[in-house]
Amino acid sequence: MTSLASRACAPCKGEEGKLSPAEIKAHLVALPAWQHGGDRITRRFTFKNFVQALAFVNQLGEVAEEQGHHPDLTLGWGYVGVTLTTHDCGGLSLNDMIMAAKIDALV
Amino acid sequence: MTSLASRACAPCKGEEGKLSPAEIKAHLVALPAWQHGGDRITRRFTFKNFVQALAFVNQLGEVAEEQGHHPDLTLGWGYVGVTLTTHDCGGLSLNDMIMAAKIDALV
Repeated sequence: MTSLASRACAPCKGEEGKLSPAEIKAHLVALPAWQHGGDRITRRFTFKNFVQALAFVNQLGEVAEEQGHHPDLTLGWGYVGVTLTTHDCGGLSLNDMIMAAKIDALV
Repeated sequence: MTSLASRACAPCKGEEGKLSPAEIKAHLVALPAWQHGGDRITRRFTFKNFVQALAFVNQLGEVAEEQGHHPDLTLGWGYVGVTLTTHDCGGLSLNDMIMAAKIDALV
């Protein structure tokens, strides 16, 4: 687990919480499997079948509920896609980076 | 439950199993909440929170496994999107209509 993964999502600070491009770049060094585009980061996970993909969604859902920060997901036979963004700050916040690290730690 | 919902998905018959535009139209009379576009039908469900949306995905996943026919899903805080298509026939098959009816019967 990286230090990012061991942190907890904090209540959103609105626009103040929005990371700068330089901050995003710095965080993504520790999150190499995530793609950054616009106001979001995404990662696609592959699995052997639907049941394994659904099990991962449930694991991930538990973390999301615990942290009060919910990604947008895609789910189908053998895959799960995860998109993280923070609507309240209109971009990426530290919470997104923490969630990404926690999700990485699940696999 | 409609009669469609009480049927079981059958092994795919390849291109032979592809429904004609007239057949699709006829089936969709019993599935008014589904949108038809191109080779797929979709429906969006809304929920009070993430936990309820995830619970629905699990219910739906159980039916998909049972029937051996898996939709593509989107899931986030308060919503689930369902897309049905049959890759093996390159369009919509009776299995998609049966799954749509079974999914309608869950809510």
